[in-house]
Amino acid sequence: MAASNELVTAAILVIGDEILSGRTKDRNIGYIAEYLTAIGIDVREVRIVPDVEEEIVGAVNALRARHTYLFTTGGIGPTHDDITADCVAKAFGVSIDVDPRARAMLLEYIKPEDLNEARLRMARIPAGAELVPNPVSKAPGFWIGNVIVMAGVPTIMQAMLDQVAPKLNTGVRMLSETVRADAREGDVGGPLGEIARRHPEVSIGSYPFMTEEGRPNTNLVVRARDPEKLAAAVAEVEAMVATVRRT
Amino acid sequence: MAASNELVTAAILVIGDEILSGRTKDRNIGYIAEYLTAIGIDVREVRIVPDVEEEIVGAVNALRARHTYLFTTGGIGPTHDDITADCVAKAFGVSIDVDPRARAMLLEYIKPEDLNEARLRMARIPAGAELVPNPVSKAPGFWIGNVIVMAGVPTIMQAMLDQVAPKLNTGVRMLSETVRADAREGDVGGPLGEIARRHPEVSIGSYPFMTEEGRPNTNLVVRARDPEKLAAAVAEVEAMVATVRRT
Repeated sequence: MAASNELVTAAILVIGDEILSGRTKDRNIGYIAEYLTAIGIDVREVRIVPDVEEEIVGAVNALRARHTYLFTTGGIGPTHDDITADCVAKAFGVSIDVDPRARAMLLEYIKPEDLNEARLRMARIPAGAELVPNPVSKAPGFWIGNVIVMAGVPTIMQAMLDQVAPKLNTGVRMLSETVRADAREGDVGGPLGEIARRHPEVSIGSYPFMTEEGRPNTNLVVRARDPEKLAAAVAEVEAMVATVRRT
Repeated sequence: MAASNELVTAAILVIGDEILSGRTKDRNIGYIAEYLTAIGIDVREVRIVPDVEEEIVGAVNALRARHTYLFTTGGIGPTHDDITADCVAKAFGVSIDVDPRARAMLLEYIKPEDLNEARLRMARIPAGAELVPNPVSKAPGFWIGNVIVMAGVPTIMQAMLDQVAPKLNTGVRMLSETVRADAREGDVGGPLGEIARRHPEVSIGSYPFMTEEGRPNTNLVVRARDPEKLAAAVAEVEAMVATVRRT
């Protein structure tokens, strides 16, 4: 993992009708977002699109142009509705065919007599892509340009992300500190905005929640890459909170 | 709720740094998607963007142009990082100010002496918008053009959606039937693709899962608006599955 002082950003593209119909609840976005944040990559945008070629191609091209990396999940299985690999090939303007390396990986898991046309779809890889090994069920993901194509099944996606992470360029990690206000959001909003204006390089978020006793409370999350700037803003937030905290 | 034969589509826009950092896991997308699907509105696209004006304005304008409705969640609280209302006003090119109706709603919940500048932010509503009542904590959402702006806190968002739903135009409900294959996805992929090609007005999805006994299995989900077309495709899927089902 090569850390740099440059900002490294990412987008996530989730592909699948079943997420848009609400039939399947996505569990990958939050996982990938937390994972990338922890290693110094800022997730800036997420999209969910249906299993429709022009939607996938359009989103891949829009997002790969805007971010250091684009991570996709879903649509690389053996059935007719799995069209992600073909769409990524189209987005890059490269050919796609059964990749001998991917075919060999499938044969670690699938008997040769079971390697039918449907399963061979999972070995279709755009020309020029690197494979992303799949320790769970062998059918690989792939990496082409700045686009990393992963499975939609969470356990497989997570294993693929572990394979990819050591090879990613990462930036300075975003540091974060949470101050519990013990006050309602509306009571801290005014002074918090003033602190935010005084610390333009620090990001301050305000997140209301209910305590176990059912009382409204607020977490103030202060984020910055520079530990000194973070500490200065946190000190001001803590001092402010001490004055408005309900007694 | 006015049902029509026309296709009614929607996009969902989730606004908030805390979702992109993975700190907060989104629970609204799946809920809204399932809810809208059930009343005959097709969710076609979802985006998650940070608390950044140009990103929010850009996404609002892109999505409201493409779909019958756009539903947003997040960013309508009392703190400086809540900029959704201002961004929606900007996207529509209308002014925004404290709305007397919204102010009156806040005063049902908040004592006049507690209605400070931060809390009054929650009464800032773009000119020409209808209010969406908030039975939970009073601060309203709003509806302008085809954009419905809701809170990010799931309980409040859900209550707002209940308020809005009876006023939405809805299309013919998508019908859905699930056939459990009792086979691996790769075993049904070939014949399933042929069935899908023979039924172009029916959408067929294939979703692998693990049984409780740890065996790979597959759900085949057949979807259509026309019950006869649905039944015809389901019959073919069931006949196909009977021939490949593992014995």
